[in-house]
Amino acid sequence: MSERMYKADQIKIMASQKLRSLGKQIVSDLERGKFPYLELPARTTANIVYDEKLRQYVLGEKRVERTTKNIRHLRPFAQLLWIAAFAKKLLHDGKTSTLRDTYYVAIGEGIDFEDQNESDEMIMQLESILDFPREDFNIFPEERASIYGDLIIEYTVPGFRGKRVDLSIHPDGFAIGPALTTAEFVKCGAEQVFVIEKGAVFSRFVEEGADKKYKAILIHTAGQSPRNCRKLIRRLHDELNLPVYVFTDADPWGVHIASVLIHGSALSAHIKEINVPDAIWAGVWPSDIRKYKLPSMKLSEQDIKRIQDLEADPRYQTDPWKREIKEFWNIKRKAELEAFSRYGLDFIVKEFLPERLTELQKQ
Amino acid sequence: MSERMYKADQIKIMASQKLRSLGKQIVSDLERGKFPYLELPARTTANIVYDEKLRQYVLGEKRVERTTKNIRHLRPFAQLLWIAAFAKKLLHDGKTSTLRDTYYVAIGEGIDFEDQNESDEMIMQLESILDFPREDFNIFPEERASIYGDLIIEYTVPGFRGKRVDLSIHPDGFAIGPALTTAEFVKCGAEQVFVIEKGAVFSRFVEEGADKKYKAILIHTAGQSPRNCRKLIRRLHDELNLPVYVFTDADPWGVHIASVLIHGSALSAHIKEINVPDAIWAGVWPSDIRKYKLPSMKLSEQDIKRIQDLEADPRYQTDPWKREIKEFWNIKRKAELEAFSRYGLDFIVKEFLPERLTELQKQ
Repeated sequence: MSERMYKADQIKIMASQKLRSLGKQIVSDLERGKFPYLELPARTTANIVYDEKLRQYVLGEKRVERTTKNIRHLRPFAQLLWIAAFAKKLLHDGKTSTLRDTYYVAIGEGIDFEDQNESDEMIMQLESILDFPREDFNIFPEERASIYGDLIIEYTVPGFRGKRVDLSIHPDGFAIGPALTTAEFVKCGAEQVFVIEKGAVFSRFVEEGADKKYKAILIHTAGQSPRNCRKLIRRLHDELNLPVYVFTDADPWGVHIASVLIHGSALSAHIKEINVPDAIWAGVWPSDIRKYKLPSMKLSEQDIKRIQDLEADPRYQTDPWKREIKEFWNIKRKAELEAFSRYGLDFIVKEFLPERLTELQKQ
Repeated sequence: MSERMYKADQIKIMASQKLRSLGKQIVSDLERGKFPYLELPARTTANIVYDEKLRQYVLGEKRVERTTKNIRHLRPFAQLLWIAAFAKKLLHDGKTSTLRDTYYVAIGEGIDFEDQNESDEMIMQLESILDFPREDFNIFPEERASIYGDLIIEYTVPGFRGKRVDLSIHPDGFAIGPALTTAEFVKCGAEQVFVIEKGAVFSRFVEEGADKKYKAILIHTAGQSPRNCRKLIRRLHDELNLPVYVFTDADPWGVHIASVLIHGSALSAHIKEINVPDAIWAGVWPSDIRKYKLPSMKLSEQDIKRIQDLEADPRYQTDPWKREIKEFWNIKRKAELEAFSRYGLDFIVKEFLPERLTELQKQ
């Protein structure tokens, strides 16, 4: 058991302090006979602005007040305070929870939430007040991404604190849960990160030795990357200075997986730095369907509706996004990462990957 | 690099031999001027019977012939032979694939498959002819379960052959892909296996030290357990003599996750021993909703339809299945594993788990 202070500890201490001052403010108002109130950033579409410096969408200046003077505010005020108290307890006890789990604990303690949507909303309000993502007060996603590569980590969670693991010893990948998310990076032999949407392609990269040939850490997101996975990729980029390449299907869902990782999601505009602005979408692009003569499928009604949505989204107004969305309309087709297997199982790593990396590095 | 022969090697040698004799039979027919033909088990509902000894549904005696004499058989005959040749190549090259990937390779080689359903069907026909699950000829599921606990494994896959890993060193779990599926069990300190549908509950079990308190290996299936995960659980039971307890939501989907793990799926009646007949469904049962006063939700239209399907299924004609399906109709509600959190985050491990294990061990 190491007694040293980790970055993860510092974050948790800061989050705890913010929670304590939130509580103190309420108590102090009460003691002075004032109606307690809170101010929080407005999480409305109109208050979402693009921050050039952070290169992500963030909340603007507009704030809303929640005051106990107003009887209609009392219920959400109490709900929010309960969530804050629960977050404090999680940090104190060193336990983790999920959005769903938190809802059930609330139900058990007789907190009046109509349904889980209401408790989720309060957790997001707490994030916006504290300016910390919920993972920093130990509320983690249910979904698990996984990671494999030349990186040694050191755990900071109870029971494993100070222990180290080499992430290159298990080629199927290490699940990214609370322990991996809060680990420190001790030693890294990799020079870049490949983020991969599909399990089959992750396995292909491992079998073809892409991790060694390209000195790459491989991350399997299993669809949309969970928030803690996005944060981990951000840390790999920021702390270890590793470039990040993202590989998704050439369908509107795959494109959006890459976009959310890079630009952040609208839903988390109130949270900073769980996106990776420097990450690069490396394909498979809609334009690759023609270029590589990939087996492809007709866009479905649902795909077309989704592409129209993306077209209207501010995140899709520059290239490669704009160019590739346009290509969807030209060809009216979509393709999967596995489609490269038409040229043999090793084509994606032996031919496509070096071509694409060279192309992107020229830019 | 160890030169020893592993069980996984023996299986692959046997699968290769079966593939070779399949090819030889065709060649020999051709050389003797005969029209090549194949016989395969009929995979129709009428030919699915319950095998008392194997305690799973298997295919009956009915067989179908596929002969090159019949021009309508020629296309599926050629498709099947291509799949067999591809399987042989995978085993020879030590590479893995998925159903989807296999389809794309076929497209690339000009094999006439209408869509992926057709190539999937041929892979299942090959399974039924060889009497080996497709994982034994290196076609793996896309989905990944994960595992954590007091077990040391030794890899048999290229690049990692002979290397050992202790599965208790990463509390978020090790992804179960091709390498873990084919590993040998070297040393096990666990005395039972807990299979868990939900990521949040898997993390809860880890945090509350259920693995140590109950000397248990924890497996997170992330919904329906992938086939290779089921096979791995079967091996933990057969080779290490570990009892297996399955924890799912008390909704028709959760119930079926437990049932498929225990009884096998109708779709894989042609494959033996990827189910775990001795595994025990440990809850959360519909009857636990009343017993533990769990927060619950009304059954949806979709739930009700699904429960009606299960009711008609031969796997649901004995207890606990029959009893619990009936309970759905009594209460018309469903609950999740996380619902125990109403009594605090540690309730599920500290109260429910010992109660349930005692109850089940009395029977």
